[in-house]
Amino acid sequence: MTHFKPKDPDYRQKVEASFARQAFLATIGARMTELEPGHCTLEMPTRPDLCQQHGFVHAGATTTLADTAAGYAAFSLMPAGSAVLTTEFKVNLLSPAKGEKLVARAQVLKPGRTLVVVRSDVYGVEDGKETLAATMLATMICLAGASDPV
Amino acid sequence: MTHFKPKDPDYRQKVEASFARQAFLATIGARMTELEPGHCTLEMPTRPDLCQQHGFVHAGATTTLADTAAGYAAFSLMPAGSAVLTTEFKVNLLSPAKGEKLVARAQVLKPGRTLVVVRSDVYGVEDGKETLAATMLATMICLAGASDPV
Amino acid sequence: MTHFKPKDPDYRQKVEASFARQAFLATIGARMTELEPGHCTLEMPTRPDLCQQHGFVHAGATTTLADTAAGYAAFSLMPAGSAVLTTEFKVNLLSPAKGEKLVARAQVLKPGRTLVVVRSDVYGVEDGKETLAATMLATMICLAGASDPV
Amino acid sequence: MTHFKPKDPDYRQKVEASFARQAFLATIGARMTELEPGHCTLEMPTRPDLCQQHGFVHAGATTTLADTAAGYAAFSLMPAGSAVLTTEFKVNLLSPAKGEKLVARAQVLKPGRTLVVVRSDVYGVEDGKETLAATMLATMICLAGASDPV
Repeated sequence: MTHFKPKDPDYRQKVEASFARQAFLATIGARMTELEPGHCTLEMPTRPDLCQQHGFVHAGATTTLADTAAGYAAFSLMPAGSAVLTTEFKVNLLSPAKGEKLVARAQVLKPGRTLVVVRSDVYGVEDGKETLAATMLATMICLAGASDPV
Repeated sequence: MTHFKPKDPDYRQKVEASFARQAFLATIGARMTELEPGHCTLEMPTRPDLCQQHGFVHAGATTTLADTAAGYAAFSLMPAGSAVLTTEFKVNLLSPAKGEKLVARAQVLKPGRTLVVVRSDVYGVEDGKETLAATMLATMICLAGASDPV
Repeated sequence: MTHFKPKDPDYRQKVEASFARQAFLATIGARMTELEPGHCTLEMPTRPDLCQQHGFVHAGATTTLADTAAGYAAFSLMPAGSAVLTTEFKVNLLSPAKGEKLVARAQVLKPGRTLVVVRSDVYGVEDGKETLAATMLATMICLAGASDPV
Repeated sequence: MTHFKPKDPDYRQKVEASFARQAFLATIGARMTELEPGHCTLEMPTRPDLCQQHGFVHAGATTTLADTAAGYAAFSLMPAGSAVLTTEFKVNLLSPAKGEKLVARAQVLKPGRTLVVVRSDVYGVEDGKETLAATMLATMICLAGASDPV
């Protein structure tokens, strides 16, 4: 795990405030369990209303978790007074997303000034055992002077 | 729009039955508005509970719509007695996903026997005017002899 | 085909000068056959030294052609005094890249000020008939004040 | 580094024979320096004829190296009598590809029977120091009964 120095000493408050404003995260039951500069861990239950036709978590819900973790891993490194947006990502779905919960762990690979590239892995947790369900490679953009609404 | 000949004459029933079993699609309010062999159109409202911190539809919800349209465009071409799974996709988010509703239009580019490659575009519809919000390139896999549960 | 208005009236000279400086393009025998604002077409022979173990053009050479066409489609829309860089792309290889030559056609989907998203398709041409061999979705970045070396 | 058990005890000969038949790899000067089941390392010089307009290795050449390493990492795990093909990949270009040479290290993430998902990272090596230049996420397909030509 690479260590990064945050440009914004209040990165934690900024990320938590932003997370709290995302209604869709409440819809899917996501919550943040870890945040370090350049790293973010989220969890989500495997509720029936998040599932697809085979009873596994829908790729779209899994992707939402991975994308959100990636976004906040990147946002934690951005300077005060800026906003984060996902520009693109790619996901490989490696095994059925199942278990008691899903855990997404995102880590910044390249903290550029404008673009931040992040890897985000989602694991299904079953009886405490983790299985890699999906891996994402994402590009986040830092919008300077376009800070999140308060 | 390329025209394809379906291998399964009952492709429409198969797709609609599969769609109806996806609880997450009910959660986000998605509905199917068009289905032709190799093509699928879905719609989704831009409800507040699907939005992110800036008030636009969350990239994860937009992606869910694009992925689902892509999956059913592919599934419509698969033989009877098979199931469809997303193996991977990449999305570029081009403009804020907003308006009265989002529309996802998916079209099969390559209908392979095992892998089906699909393009899926999502538009925000505002006062009847469509703006391209996201474009996806996805790979679906046909699981023979692994038909969807009934 | 969408029409764009170039910010740099000398876009053609700029693109051609940049192309001429890319040694790797000479190595693979690529040449530009069309350039319009936001669009670029390149061709490449299917020489044996560009092939992989089955006798088809190597995915890496096909990708080079697609990426280069995408880069110049984007560069044609950038203002004078800026440079273009590929930040990321995704390619689906749809059928063997073969025939007398390959043709890559790139079209800008979203001409942002900082990021330009481009679709680039590569066709194998055999007896005048084109077969889609690969499709790419790419993100180019505009580096202002970092113009190409002369 | 995950350890995998190869299905083909002669995986090394198979991979080396395939590599030797790829003319484009000779064109770019790539050579294999390590091969373990599910892992592959390649090197490539940073010759002027592989470079783009700013004097760095062209994204297409870098991608070729990453893709080839990924393909052989996957192929090393495939059963005898099968061939490997790239179906798709996504690359993020993180920093200029420069130095004395490039090194690509590929590692299988998911060794499926049909699809093998691989991560492949390319480093520029300058005065012995490695810098991550690109990261790829690739999907390889195993074509059973379609072994490479001899």
